[in-house]
Amino acid sequence: MTHENFKTAEFARATRQASIELARLSTEWKNRALFKMAEYLLKDEDKIIAENAKDLKQAEKNGLSPAMIDRLVLNHERLEKMAHAVQEIAALPDPVGKVNSVWKRPNGIEVSLVHIPLGVVMMIYESRPNVTSDAAALCLKSGNAVILRGGSEAFHSNQAIGAALHKALQEEKIPSEAISVVPTTDRKIMEELLTQDELIDLIIPRGGEGLIRFVAKNSRIPVIKHYKGVCHMYVDADADEEVAMNLLIDGKLSRPGVCNALETMLVHQDVAETFLPQAGEYLREKGVELRGCERTRKIVPYANDATEEDYEAEFLSLILTVKVVSDLDEAVSHIHRYGSDHTEVIVTNNLANTQRFIKEINSSVVMVNASSRFSDGGELGLGAEIGISTTKLHAYGPMGLEALTTKKFVIMGSGQTRHNLHLNQ
Amino acid sequence: MTHENFKTAEFARATRQASIELARLSTEWKNRALFKMAEYLLKDEDKIIAENAKDLKQAEKNGLSPAMIDRLVLNHERLEKMAHAVQEIAALPDPVGKVNSVWKRPNGIEVSLVHIPLGVVMMIYESRPNVTSDAAALCLKSGNAVILRGGSEAFHSNQAIGAALHKALQEEKIPSEAISVVPTTDRKIMEELLTQDELIDLIIPRGGEGLIRFVAKNSRIPVIKHYKGVCHMYVDADADEEVAMNLLIDGKLSRPGVCNALETMLVHQDVAETFLPQAGEYLREKGVELRGCERTRKIVPYANDATEEDYEAEFLSLILTVKVVSDLDEAVSHIHRYGSDHTEVIVTNNLANTQRFIKEINSSVVMVNASSRFSDGGELGLGAEIGISTTKLHAYGPMGLEALTTKKFVIMGSGQTRHNLHLNQ
Repeated sequence: MTHENFKTAEFARATRQASIELARLSTEWKNRALFKMAEYLLKDEDKIIAENAKDLKQAEKNGLSPAMIDRLVLNHERLEKMAHAVQEIAALPDPVGKVNSVWKRPNGIEVSLVHIPLGVVMMIYESRPNVTSDAAALCLKSGNAVILRGGSEAFHSNQAIGAALHKALQEEKIPSEAISVVPTTDRKIMEELLTQDELIDLIIPRGGEGLIRFVAKNSRIPVIKHYKGVCHMYVDADADEEVAMNLLIDGKLSRPGVCNALETMLVHQDVAETFLPQAGEYLREKGVELRGCERTRKIVPYANDATEEDYEAEFLSLILTVKVVSDLDEAVSHIHRYGSDHTEVIVTNNLANTQRFIKEINSSVVMVNASSRFSDGGELGLGAEIGISTTKLHAYGPMGLEALTTKKFVIMGSGQTRHNLHLNQ
Repeated sequence: MTHENFKTAEFARATRQASIELARLSTEWKNRALFKMAEYLLKDEDKIIAENAKDLKQAEKNGLSPAMIDRLVLNHERLEKMAHAVQEIAALPDPVGKVNSVWKRPNGIEVSLVHIPLGVVMMIYESRPNVTSDAAALCLKSGNAVILRGGSEAFHSNQAIGAALHKALQEEKIPSEAISVVPTTDRKIMEELLTQDELIDLIIPRGGEGLIRFVAKNSRIPVIKHYKGVCHMYVDADADEEVAMNLLIDGKLSRPGVCNALETMLVHQDVAETFLPQAGEYLREKGVELRGCERTRKIVPYANDATEEDYEAEFLSLILTVKVVSDLDEAVSHIHRYGSDHTEVIVTNNLANTQRFIKEINSSVVMVNASSRFSDGGELGLGAEIGISTTKLHAYGPMGLEALTTKKFVIMGSGQTRHNLHLNQ
């Protein structure tokens, strides 16, 4: 389908209409639909895998890297995982209708803040087809209709997954537009959708920095941005060096390719002489390249020179920048300058420094004596995660179901008026 | 100043830098500055009134309406009011640092959500110069730096108010860029500021629908939109008719020119024959023009015919559209179709209908047996109000201080790691 015969506004309007119906559904109803969705992901296995084969064939033709192709592959095991993820979302508490707070006014009206769905959420993502069912399930559970716009490399897979989910919706009498899979990857149509600010409430792009910048630039709708995760760990003068080592190893080595991995370590000068040689040696053995400031290189001479660009980079690989700092102030300033508002860690046993670090660092996740790798919806107890926001909006940091809601004011009165212009006056 | 010699990015960057310092200030420090700001609004009275006179002279030259000119006038009484408003904001609780919730994970890490300032907020507004001090005070109290871009008709007044506020900041050793008054009303510069999405976190436009649409269209930064308030009141079959009359009178007549005034009344057919003649007669006497559907006009023949446009309109004057509906479903559908997500009221003594109305209407404020005129930050207990959001973001409905914050995750650990890649393995 091309943009000549695709009616963007009609497509978005149908999704909006479905969102009104979704917002009213009971938790039980939504959960029934989720279990059915999981069921159909497996029932339609043959069809989905056949469509996936088309994408894989095209990927090979296009010379995609083995890593990219691996992300694309669907098989029985992966479909089972996807179905299981949908069932897990069914098991999470429903965020809709949750009362955030209640207070009474002197005139007797009772004010409460009640969570409601955002309305229509648009996901724009690349490669991994499991995002299709994950995002559909998270949005359905939180009462939102979703527009799913996956990448062209997974087009057939995403359409097939969408078709399976639609069978579940149909059986549960939920309009299929509640999960609107864009039937084309024409970029013009994505651009048109990004201007539908009266029909779409939020855009969540997941993918490379280029994709996110493109979406942010062309959207009239609020965009949850997450360009990169340049996560810092500051080893304070009062750090427990064993804790620091464990957090460093976990943060840098457990999975270097993810956004909550450590990219920079800041070390207080008082512990640099003892801590850096030990840490450096360990990392070097594990194949990590160190890039450090002058003071670092004096202590660990095998470290390379760190440039400005290095301090700004999200390496996602076995490179760590290191800086020796004179005090907490210098560490905080460095993070303000080079950080990405994702996750920062302090290792210390000093209470005053802990309090200052928490107060002065306003990244979305601030950790004290814990690994940056906990910066994840599942690890923090939010259940499944639809993304991570480094945009300071209603959602900042890992986004679970509640981040897909907003709050309305509900006022219970017994006839109160603001002025006394009553009938018999 | 014109856009040729104004450095937009530098201006925004200086504001951002100030925001980092502001975010750290204690409540006491911010309150001291607020009291000083109030003081200087009065100390600088002569200067401000002299600058205001320039705006008034220009306004008369430009032939502005008396109502517009009245909004522009500053005098001793109004400056006292502005100073008092700033003092009241000092007295409100500080939203920064408030802990929203705390939980523990099985591995012992403690997760909490802590309110932090958004960072840099840009206000774009028309005419009333009091917005300059109100917005500056609300942003300072919530730890945000603010960019103030008022209308050209109040240019000199806004600059003079800004200068007074800067004296207070200077005495309290707060960078003057914490309150950045744009020194020009060149539209090009506003457009340039709207693209600084890495330096500005939120845009709040206050003014006519044209201004808000312009800002939303040209901004790469999230915009709090509030186009109009088309507020509905639904009089249910089980309504207390005396309550309905009082809410109607308060909603339509107490101040018809504001966004929380009633524009449309929906009446259940079972009570239309008794309620409509009484209500219609009263409103007619008060000079209100009724525009109704066919069924309405059968009961109150002096009502005019309501068009589609009438149901969509925010009249802000003595006009009320009326529709007789067959049931709650029809009322809800009408609100979904014509509503503006601002405020809707149900008058009823029926519990099931109350619950359905609350569940199915996701406008930012939903009222049961209370006047739409309570839809206001002050009336709902939020303290002062910086705006009303009908954008489903972190702020939806009247926005007080807390709506100028977001939440970060703070994690307290004792050395926990996600994987067990410890030193001695």
